Amino acid sequence: MDIIKTIEWKDNKVIMLDQRRLPHEELYNTYEDYLGVAKAIKNMVIRGAPAIGVAAAMGTALGAMGIGVENFDEFFQKLSAICDRLGETRPTAVNLFWALARMKACAQLNKELPIPEIAEKLKEEALKIYTEDLESNHMIGRNGEKLLQDGMTVLTHCNAGALATAGFGTALGVIYSATNAGKRIHVIADETRPRLQGAMLTAWELQKHGIEVTVISDTMMGSLMKQREIDACIVGADRIAANGDVANKIGTYQVAVLANRHGVPFYVAAPLSTIDLDIKSGNDIPIEERDPKEVTHIGPIHITPDYVKIQNPAFDVTPAELITAIITEKGVVEGPYENSISKLFN
Amino acid sequence: MDIIKTIEWKDNKVIMLDQRRLPHEELYNTYEDYLGVAKAIKNMVIRGAPAIGVAAAMGTALGAMGIGVENFDEFFQKLSAICDRLGETRPTAVNLFWALARMKACAQLNKELPIPEIAEKLKEEALKIYTEDLESNHMIGRNGEKLLQDGMTVLTHCNAGALATAGFGTALGVIYSATNAGKRIHVIADETRPRLQGAMLTAWELQKHGIEVTVISDTMMGSLMKQREIDACIVGADRIAANGDVANKIGTYQVAVLANRHGVPFYVAAPLSTIDLDIKSGNDIPIEERDPKEVTHIGPIHITPDYVKIQNPAFDVTPAELITAIITEKGVVEGPYENSISKLFN
Repeated sequence: MDIIKTIEWKDNKVIMLDQRRLPHEELYNTYEDYLGVAKAIKNMVIRGAPAIGVAAAMGTALGAMGIGVENFDEFFQKLSAICDRLGETRPTAVNLFWALARMKACAQLNKELPIPEIAEKLKEEALKIYTEDLESNHMIGRNGEKLLQDGMTVLTHCNAGALATAGFGTALGVIYSATNAGKRIHVIADETRPRLQGAMLTAWELQKHGIEVTVISDTMMGSLMKQREIDACIVGADRIAANGDVANKIGTYQVAVLANRHGVPFYVAAPLSTIDLDIKSGNDIPIEERDPKEVTHIGPIHITPDYVKIQNPAFDVTPAELITAIITEKGVVEGPYENSISKLFN
Repeated sequence: MDIIKTIEWKDNKVIMLDQRRLPHEELYNTYEDYLGVAKAIKNMVIRGAPAIGVAAAMGTALGAMGIGVENFDEFFQKLSAICDRLGETRPTAVNLFWALARMKACAQLNKELPIPEIAEKLKEEALKIYTEDLESNHMIGRNGEKLLQDGMTVLTHCNAGALATAGFGTALGVIYSATNAGKRIHVIADETRPRLQGAMLTAWELQKHGIEVTVISDTMMGSLMKQREIDACIVGADRIAANGDVANKIGTYQVAVLANRHGVPFYVAAPLSTIDLDIKSGNDIPIEERDPKEVTHIGPIHITPDYVKIQNPAFDVTPAELITAIITEKGVVEGPYENSISKLFN
């Protein structure tokens, strides 16, 4: 089932599929130090909240191997600096900070061990984060596939698939589980400007799994919903607030508004590591503003006139009221989300 | 004021600004026969419902000059074939059929004249359609600018400017009139995939007129509305049904749904030639499906995997209930539109 190797730990190196080259080229990059991993996250060689979390953990483990000190306090100071550097890459996906916090806690927990053994423990922790994410995704898939019926057409935005996670995917994991259960699902992938993850990644990944996929421009989903050609929407998440507000790829909010108007269920699929109980509502989630060049250019093609003003927020917030259900590895929850989400953590 | 020459009749030839080359190159193509004009409409050298109407009229006039017969019935048969050819280019914009019907009626009205004089009358009729469209746009501008206040940020979708008309524009004509009246207007131009008319044409045209413009991806308008950063939306139209339903560039419907949710007024600006009283509701408006390559490619860049399925409807229908007002050269009308629209024609 795991046709796609998004990220892998091998011979004390990190290997990533360079997602900027898809769909036309499958190129794997090898990283031997944490700075390379930080750059890869920032430049979106790897993207998707859970995958970013795994990459940050593996980056920390790589960094820990290179800290040449014998005293724990000194070691931890350097480890914290490594985590800070990795944490500067992308502000919105909470899995990044969650993974870094877990790596630091692991070091603290093993502070009595000799430094090389702590580094070994950190490597194990990173691999554990990887494996747990993979397992979570399979659980999300099993929990979510019950919401899909044979013959449905499902819209997804951006990429929340194997490429966005340790493997299998969250939103696309639900679709994979449904098709594994014998249901025929037709997926509409909107292209997801500016970075085109829908057209370039989701379409590629679904084709690779033999699932019927149609690509549309981001301007077309409303018209399709009006014609009752979409039965459900499923997206991933970059951060979920305690009240159920969901930060996800820019444009998610519009999909949710349109789904709401047309009575189409709107599902969010994400592991618990994406839920940030410290954030009360979506208003408090930091939204990354990215390079205007993502909007003005597509590859080398300059589409706008020179010197035009640009806005390029990478994420938006969908209020909980527009979300039919959140699909997690611990179960499917509905609103009011303050209660149902807090119960997931008990 | 008329900085932009979208289409011009000169020395019995038709000159068009090649809109496929904008914003980086201002190239003018010269057409000496109606087949060239038909191709130019189909390939979107020129686009925008009113501009297509003018181009079709001028194309018919060019064609009429080349009909070498002396008998009116024969002449009219050949003229009808020319009109049929021009009418095959784009199915949605009604101005095309409106202009062709007007040209044929002009020929009938002058059937007693010698053929060369009928051809001359047709040329005059085409120029009249051109001039009337220009005048209509200025009237639309004057009628509509009252709806905009100083300091407003206005979202527009696709291009309904000088480039989409004989000149001045419909939706952008309203903005030009407002700025001419001393109001500062900031325009948000969404890029309008798949053909990117917002990023490539609207941004270029507004910059040329010295109006502040920000380009966003089509995924971003919902988030901006949620943050109350958009005060009004104005779009053009390709065909308006008798009940006020509006066919316009794909994605218009989504903008209207979002505007409705956020209490943002949603205006449609169009001349009476865009209203089709023979069409009861938007359900009866034919929607053009265009080449999948518009979605799969941006310039030479192939963004999707090979062999992926595509949908590419060029237009959608916004129901009248989502339209705050329709701005025409005869005045601004509100719903219920059956009444208010029919009054415009009295």
